Amino acid sequence: MIHENGNDPAPTRTESVSRRRFLTTSAGIGATAAAGRAVADSLADVPAREVGAPLGARSERSKYEQLSRIPEATPGKRNVDPGLAINSKTPLDKLVGIITPSDLHYERSHSGVPDLNPAKHRILIHGMVKKALVLTVDELMAMPSVSRIHFIECTGNGWENWKKADPTLTVQNTHGLISTNEWTGVPLGYLIDLVGVDRKSTWMLAEGGDAAGVDRSIPLTDEIIDQAFVAYGQNGEPLRPAHGFPIRLIMPGFEGNLNIKWLRRLKFGDQPWMTRWETARYTQLLADGKARQFQLRMDTNSVITSPSGMMEIRPGYHRITGLAWSGHGAIKKVVISTDGANTWQEAQLNHPVLPRAQTRFQMDWVWDGKPTKVVSCSTDDQGNVQPDRKSFIDRIGTNALFHYNAQQTWGIDEAGRVRNVLA
Amino acid sequence: MIHENGNDPAPTRTESVSRRRFLTTSAGIGATAAAGRAVADSLADVPAREVGAPLGARSERSKYEQLSRIPEATPGKRNVDPGLAINSKTPLDKLVGIITPSDLHYERSHSGVPDLNPAKHRILIHGMVKKALVLTVDELMAMPSVSRIHFIECTGNGWENWKKADPTLTVQNTHGLISTNEWTGVPLGYLIDLVGVDRKSTWMLAEGGDAAGVDRSIPLTDEIIDQAFVAYGQNGEPLRPAHGFPIRLIMPGFEGNLNIKWLRRLKFGDQPWMTRWETARYTQLLADGKARQFQLRMDTNSVITSPSGMMEIRPGYHRITGLAWSGHGAIKKVVISTDGANTWQEAQLNHPVLPRAQTRFQMDWVWDGKPTKVVSCSTDDQGNVQPDRKSFIDRIGTNALFHYNAQQTWGIDEAGRVRNVLA
Repeated sequence: MIHENGNDPAPTRTESVSRRRFLTTSAGIGATAAAGRAVADSLADVPAREVGAPLGARSERSKYEQLSRIPEATPGKRNVDPGLAINSKTPLDKLVGIITPSDLHYERSHSGVPDLNPAKHRILIHGMVKKALVLTVDELMAMPSVSRIHFIECTGNGWENWKKADPTLTVQNTHGLISTNEWTGVPLGYLIDLVGVDRKSTWMLAEGGDAAGVDRSIPLTDEIIDQAFVAYGQNGEPLRPAHGFPIRLIMPGFEGNLNIKWLRRLKFGDQPWMTRWETARYTQLLADGKARQFQLRMDTNSVITSPSGMMEIRPGYHRITGLAWSGHGAIKKVVISTDGANTWQEAQLNHPVLPRAQTRFQMDWVWDGKPTKVVSCSTDDQGNVQPDRKSFIDRIGTNALFHYNAQQTWGIDEAGRVRNVLA
Repeated sequence: MIHENGNDPAPTRTESVSRRRFLTTSAGIGATAAAGRAVADSLADVPAREVGAPLGARSERSKYEQLSRIPEATPGKRNVDPGLAINSKTPLDKLVGIITPSDLHYERSHSGVPDLNPAKHRILIHGMVKKALVLTVDELMAMPSVSRIHFIECTGNGWENWKKADPTLTVQNTHGLISTNEWTGVPLGYLIDLVGVDRKSTWMLAEGGDAAGVDRSIPLTDEIIDQAFVAYGQNGEPLRPAHGFPIRLIMPGFEGNLNIKWLRRLKFGDQPWMTRWETARYTQLLADGKARQFQLRMDTNSVITSPSGMMEIRPGYHRITGLAWSGHGAIKKVVISTDGANTWQEAQLNHPVLPRAQTRFQMDWVWDGKPTKVVSCSTDDQGNVQPDRKSFIDRIGTNALFHYNAQQTWGIDEAGRVRNVLA
């Protein structure tokens, strides 16, 4: 009768979760779960017998779930009129897994979201090339493609905590300028061969078609030629307008602003163009008053998303969970301290662990009800370790605005209130 | 000046796309692309200088993109009133990459979509267990979790082509009852340990909370205990109501109907329950008139999504692309024929290639303008090869309705019209 089981292949263990590992804490959960709730109660709770809502052309969200970003004007100015917003942050505290829903991917824009018609949009590829080309979106979509799951992170992510710790911040406020999507598009290396870029070309200018005309100089390293691509797809569908529709550059592991949205031009040359975005805007003011230019790669980072800012917890079992990422490669290890960075334990990493993508981590914890602090620290596969806040500030100072990747500490008071603290 | 490049790690080649490989055809694309379009035209096309739309709480789709499923009543009855629909198919021809947007994941329902309040919903776990438990959704969400990218496929996917080939079918019609999402939830093995399932238990009953009360008996193989989970998350967010909100079972690689939506009960026993879903509905009528029961695993399959049914193509370069999948494991190889299954060439597989997830494949092709047929054939890492249609029908007959995985052939006439044909 059962045809299937006789020839089942051996189980493939694709996950590192071992249920054995959790057995020590599971008894506690079970006891809590069943307490005061009779099994008979559930059996009496028979499902509705009337037919449900009809199927449709699209599956909308449940009316019981509210998910939205927070439009912000500047650090500290939250929930502003969308017309004043310069960014809109992903609700990391309400998401699970590693994929960010496309409509909740963080937004950052210098002149709003342009209305581009894909039938009319063009990309110009020129400069130190054999033959300049103008391509339509359809032509790009007919070329060989890659699909990759990568994070994009605003270089300003974390800027709320440079100087002080506002205790009312949630993890959406502190770290919501990062998201992970599956992006699909044409490899940069393919386009380079197509136009015949001169081997002496060492830099590429990418320019957006928004009113601000954001343009950045990008060094043509082997890594970037190999990994960058011009994307038209996001989580299986066309890019959304806020995320660059119809095409954008994807620069895995590098500053969000290099992932030029509404891409209209790639120009090849042998030196950076020194656009205002790299002379005025995206430079890093150091402790000694000098500015660092072209600090492009996003560093090794992590944050605990639960428990996190403005949550309330009760004594007993908790599953600590969070996200880790690195612009250098894949996450190798995350350690968590539940006693204010005195002692550390290794967290479990959920599969898949992908390079330059967020990685979900988790760890069991039983809170004894005493005030404490929880903090995470990540290490990537290139050996980079996320710094603690003190050594980070000692090194960078507090003039800077970008590339904040110090460990995030959440304080927990005797009432179980979780709050943003500096360390 | 450039601090970043000096210590770049060696490039990590995460993709198998080599631009060298495409050089032979790329000259052709470039020539086509630039034909009749002066570079100066593009430079003259300056972007708008007015500020764009404000940022918001969510990023909606472009008004230029129409994406929707097709509600169907039965095979061959398409675009019906949603109230009459029993399924709604994913537009595979319009999607890229491997992730299906949550609102376009295919739907299949026996009594519409129930309206379940997550605060009131419970799951009962009982039968041959040490201690029966009733769990809330919040309790499940506090447990250790896994996130996995898997396809779910309706066992009826492909049923349109059992007996004849309607030439008006698109790939959405023929294969749209499959989608791939990132699912997040609690491992079945963890719940089994939590309630202390008797080692003599060999079967599990899973029951849905919809009016139809779909319930299925599932064999407790090591593989299923290791890989199944109770999910509350879909592509980073809570499940959508049409896909089981607040919780559903995920059974990687097995019939869609086993991935019980609106899950309200897991019961453990030592024999199958012989519910009406496994005695009447989901049995397979064979050529000799006997019915096969418990044929649970989805087989090795693939389909070319471009070019595909009802598209029109022109002579010259084309990037053939499609999706392959197997309930047995990961896709190992896809071959494509562009001459009606006479000769075959190996397609390139896009990374990541994940077990029991759809895998994107592609291949360059220059169409000479003569009538022909294109067809794909996949092989998984367990050695299973997708059958051609003739040997498939010789083996199964045409009484059956489920587990159709014969190779899909698209005919192309001299005018470039792509049509569904049997072989």
